[in-house]
Amino acid sequence: MKPEQNLMILRNCRYLITQNAKRDIFEQVDIEIQDNTIKRIGKNIATKSSDDSGVIDCSERIVMPGLVNTHTHLGMHSLRGICDDAELKDWLSIVTKAEETLDEEAVYENTLAGLREAVRFGTTTLYDSFKHPRARVRAFEKMGVRGLISASVYNKKDLKAAEQFISTINSPLLRPVIAAHSIYMTEESVLREVIAVSDDKKILRRIHVGETRKERFDIQQQRGKLPIEYLESIGFLDPKALLVHCIWITKGEIRLIGRAGAKVSHNPISNMKLASGGVMPLVEMLQEKVVVGLGTDSVASNNNLDLFEEMKLTPLLHKQHRWDPKVITPQQVLDIVTVNGAACLGLSDVGSIEIGMKADIITLDIGEHMRPVNDLLSNIVYCANGNDVNDAIIDGKVVMRNKELRKA
Amino acid sequence: MKPEQNLMILRNCRYLITQNAKRDIFEQVDIEIQDNTIKRIGKNIATKSSDDSGVIDCSERIVMPGLVNTHTHLGMHSLRGICDDAELKDWLSIVTKAEETLDEEAVYENTLAGLREAVRFGTTTLYDSFKHPRARVRAFEKMGVRGLISASVYNKKDLKAAEQFISTINSPLLRPVIAAHSIYMTEESVLREVIAVSDDKKILRRIHVGETRKERFDIQQQRGKLPIEYLESIGFLDPKALLVHCIWITKGEIRLIGRAGAKVSHNPISNMKLASGGVMPLVEMLQEKVVVGLGTDSVASNNNLDLFEEMKLTPLLHKQHRWDPKVITPQQVLDIVTVNGAACLGLSDVGSIEIGMKADIITLDIGEHMRPVNDLLSNIVYCANGNDVNDAIIDGKVVMRNKELRKA
Repeated sequence: MKPEQNLMILRNCRYLITQNAKRDIFEQVDIEIQDNTIKRIGKNIATKSSDDSGVIDCSERIVMPGLVNTHTHLGMHSLRGICDDAELKDWLSIVTKAEETLDEEAVYENTLAGLREAVRFGTTTLYDSFKHPRARVRAFEKMGVRGLISASVYNKKDLKAAEQFISTINSPLLRPVIAAHSIYMTEESVLREVIAVSDDKKILRRIHVGETRKERFDIQQQRGKLPIEYLESIGFLDPKALLVHCIWITKGEIRLIGRAGAKVSHNPISNMKLASGGVMPLVEMLQEKVVVGLGTDSVASNNNLDLFEEMKLTPLLHKQHRWDPKVITPQQVLDIVTVNGAACLGLSDVGSIEIGMKADIITLDIGEHMRPVNDLLSNIVYCANGNDVNDAIIDGKVVMRNKELRKA
Repeated sequence: MKPEQNLMILRNCRYLITQNAKRDIFEQVDIEIQDNTIKRIGKNIATKSSDDSGVIDCSERIVMPGLVNTHTHLGMHSLRGICDDAELKDWLSIVTKAEETLDEEAVYENTLAGLREAVRFGTTTLYDSFKHPRARVRAFEKMGVRGLISASVYNKKDLKAAEQFISTINSPLLRPVIAAHSIYMTEESVLREVIAVSDDKKILRRIHVGETRKERFDIQQQRGKLPIEYLESIGFLDPKALLVHCIWITKGEIRLIGRAGAKVSHNPISNMKLASGGVMPLVEMLQEKVVVGLGTDSVASNNNLDLFEEMKLTPLLHKQHRWDPKVITPQQVLDIVTVNGAACLGLSDVGSIEIGMKADIITLDIGEHMRPVNDLLSNIVYCANGNDVNDAIIDGKVVMRNKELRKA
């Protein structure tokens, strides 16, 4: 082995979540990471004689895949808590005004602060959307976090800037996204060009859709179709399409999403806090095999970036909404926030601890509120919070160790 | 001052929540605690020359009243996560069977573990209900936590044991409660005796009521009245009555509660997780000036004791349910989890940082996810989690300092 090669071993993993989580609980194994990849999982890989500098003892930790946040606006970090109790239209006008004060340097600093918060809370991959994409790229690169960075497109002029931005992304951890705000904010000709760029560059295309009842009725009136039907008619639906919110959609529209292989970002806390009305039809989506991920949205509507909260709230909301405690299991929730979230972002090599996958791994303390461990998956979903995260490894590199960020 | 007197000063409180919270934010004040009472709040009480042993610097902490949990079953601590995805009747049969295995010693150990978790999460007062009340009293006394300990009454035989238990409580931090399980589990003659004991001893009487739709219909059929109407007709409603859950009740019943001055314990996470259906009419209760507190219920239906989660979920649930983001403010949520929770338990001298009140105070870190502090109350309700709690003082005594429990 070449000495410059990165080698790390997670030793004595007793509480390990892999893709098939139940299998490995209480089986004490080691995980070997070479460079940025999980190379081996098995017993006694770590030997006593080996140099311990790259060894992390995990016998008293939960070891699990890093979490994936499919919808954030980190650039808004300084706007936390500026508007809690307002209707969406008032909220938008207050928040949009505040956003205007943020220049490129402010967006950089806000994105850095957001990444610090997200990593502390165990998130290793984020989809991030806001203005000043170059500044956000710099922040992700500085922190060493895996990211999908979008250039927002409202009109023809934005398209040129977006294409230019997309061509500059050149980092193993980052991918560009082309993001249309919404049907109601983007003309059809521009939406069609967004589709063309996404197809041409083979990159994700994102859109907010179905967030409010008003939007649903307006679009039906203006374009003669329900929102998802409309997106289907112009060719937007595709495995590269990420649809954010999707609260106000019908079963027929869910079938269109499922058939096209498009993905959905579910943001329950933001939706509840903004009182968007209704509940995203998650159960129906899972029945139609739609791939769903979780998103926190921004700290102006959440108001934090803790995906453990989102993880707990997801089953609570849907059990309550359906009057049925059996609609979603802890295993399904964990899949949504890890491997399915990664799939939403077009990443097939993160979100799961398996040989050959990228090493995006977090460890959690097992504090008073996590004991006893009668059911490890249940404890992660229903008992843990973001502050329980102890270590974060992204692409084989330690980004946080014992709650201390390496770069901050 | 006598040297044996307990004297403590919280210095440089910049982020201070008092009853009228807005007033004192960013005003740097000191808080002087003598024995178990808040004696002074003002600038420069702490002098440099004084002995620093009893001084806690709070310049980088949030200082707020300890939280009040109005409904727990700490004795069930070892049952965490044993049954997540079952309907109430199946859940009850699984959990009741598991409860039967718990002897007095197990209840003592579970209650201690529950208190460790609760104090770590900033709770300083709990209402606790389960079997083996003497064992629970021992655990509360060992940890130095303020508590209301109930003896459960299902039948005539329990009444005698309850009265005997009540007479043995003799601790400045503890009060006895007489607890009827529910209308459907308790005969009317026994309910009437519960009322008589509560009136005679001037202690709280508690009942679970309105948890499911089935219960509402069954009681209407069996007793010819809606549940709260029935309780009113037998004289249960009174300022000493604590009604737990109250999901399935009508506006008319809310008026009966309000008129009688009875109190309500709201347990949103437990209710959502068990898919009890419906939503507790909190907004209507606040309109009728009903005093409402928050409860976590047990770790078998939550699955932790983190009132910060309950605090965030409460406005989310009611905003979502009413399609209205204005139904409840962070200030109202904080009142519910502190001073109003205390009022639910008949305590008028805790839940607020004011001169003359008992010194039940917690401090919180201001981590990455709590910055910037654009709105302190918003950050506490929407951003904090239980692990942010740094210190806990109960009745003037430090129970946790820098996240280390003094007695564990």
